[in-house]
Amino acid sequence: MGKRYTHAHTIKFYECDTTGELTLPMVLNIVIQASEAQSEQLGRAEDYVHRLGYGWVITEHELTVTELPRVNQTINVSTEARYHNKYFCYRHFWLHDESGNELVHIISTFVLMDMISRKMVSVPSELIEPFASEKISKIRRGMRFPTFSQPDEQAYKVRYLDIDSNQHVNNSKYLDWMLDGLGWDWLTQYRASKIIIRFVKEVGYGQMITSRWEKDVADSEHVTASLHQITYENDTFADGYIEWSKR
Amino acid sequence: MGKRYTHAHTIKFYECDTTGELTLPMVLNIVIQASEAQSEQLGRAEDYVHRLGYGWVITEHELTVTELPRVNQTINVSTEARYHNKYFCYRHFWLHDESGNELVHIISTFVLMDMISRKMVSVPSELIEPFASEKISKIRRGMRFPTFSQPDEQAYKVRYLDIDSNQHVNNSKYLDWMLDGLGWDWLTQYRASKIIIRFVKEVGYGQMITSRWEKDVADSEHVTASLHQITYENDTFADGYIEWSKR
Repeated sequence: MGKRYTHAHTIKFYECDTTGELTLPMVLNIVIQASEAQSEQLGRAEDYVHRLGYGWVITEHELTVTELPRVNQTINVSTEARYHNKYFCYRHFWLHDESGNELVHIISTFVLMDMISRKMVSVPSELIEPFASEKISKIRRGMRFPTFSQPDEQAYKVRYLDIDSNQHVNNSKYLDWMLDGLGWDWLTQYRASKIIIRFVKEVGYGQMITSRWEKDVADSEHVTASLHQITYENDTFADGYIEWSKR
Repeated sequence: MGKRYTHAHTIKFYECDTTGELTLPMVLNIVIQASEAQSEQLGRAEDYVHRLGYGWVITEHELTVTELPRVNQTINVSTEARYHNKYFCYRHFWLHDESGNELVHIISTFVLMDMISRKMVSVPSELIEPFASEKISKIRRGMRFPTFSQPDEQAYKVRYLDIDSNQHVNNSKYLDWMLDGLGWDWLTQYRASKIIIRFVKEVGYGQMITSRWEKDVADSEHVTASLHQITYENDTFADGYIEWSKR
């Protein structure tokens, strides 16, 4: 068990969609903000990591959504660097309401990259020790995504404001592109209950990316799911799988 | 002089662009959040206005930017409903750094709309009195924008997540579409010092809008300015004028 960091956040009108619920891309921004705050608190902020020649990269988020907080609601955002092995760090995040009910739980996989070689490196203890994360030998195996049969697709150009102060396309934008194709009726009638998003490569400013999606890909009649992919010049840059429940 | 409301805000990484400065669309979101908080505090929140059959509409923002706050900086966001006449309410906003230096000053024009007829109505005293705004007879005359000679243009589709919990396209998105066309080199080399944005009509979900812009439209060699327009099916939905200074 790692050290847990928690801060409060009040949901703003511009962080919500037309249903009044916090948007899923904004869930990602809010939790990453909490992990940056913890790293700062423990003296391992991004500039410290950069001085070693490294940078953190997120390879996967797995979100379990019980309920999404609504506009003006105050929630607690918590994070804990729970487990790590030689290469992978598994960070947990939670959104809780003020009564302590869990709204969202996220397990995210972080890897450390050498900023020159752009290769994954093993995580040095000076970077992980302050978080009191537990060393494990197991690697978390990701879900095997279904394959597309007849995907729909839409093109999106990477905009100037898609790039945030970390000087990369903000991770939440991939989810934005994935969700948008599902359309108004779907997004107002269903609520995502499970989201797995995997980041493969990084898209860049000005690129015309393709968001591919397919609805109703579930293998069981009891699950409604959608499958997603972000591609650029036929290469996969991100994959997504979302389970939905009727509102 | 109206009642002034102030709250603190700490700038998040996802509210900033690649330069590490707060984005201009996010400036608008942050200040509108402050006016909503003041209205709530004074018992005139949106549900109160809606019960009367009305809704507030913003017709113009005029921003004067001395400096933009940076990622992790804590600023004070202030607002005051300073003047009003029969139809127009002039609300001021300020961003100040923690030493009290003014970073951004905004004068915004609000009008009240009948939600059924979609027509502008005169502002009843029960809606304006709690703010202690000064009644004036003058109407603030807006700047006359230059005309386009050879604009560039780009199309943008209105996305599901462009619509916020107020169930309209978030006002900051118009500025997003205006800025994006200027491109990476311009936006990283220049900083906006004055922005006037006028909202004419409201775009809707799924519409393919056109953002038109022209650089270097200034009438003086001492001012670098760009001119902007958001159109849909050849109708103007928003106009913008921005003065820039070299970073």
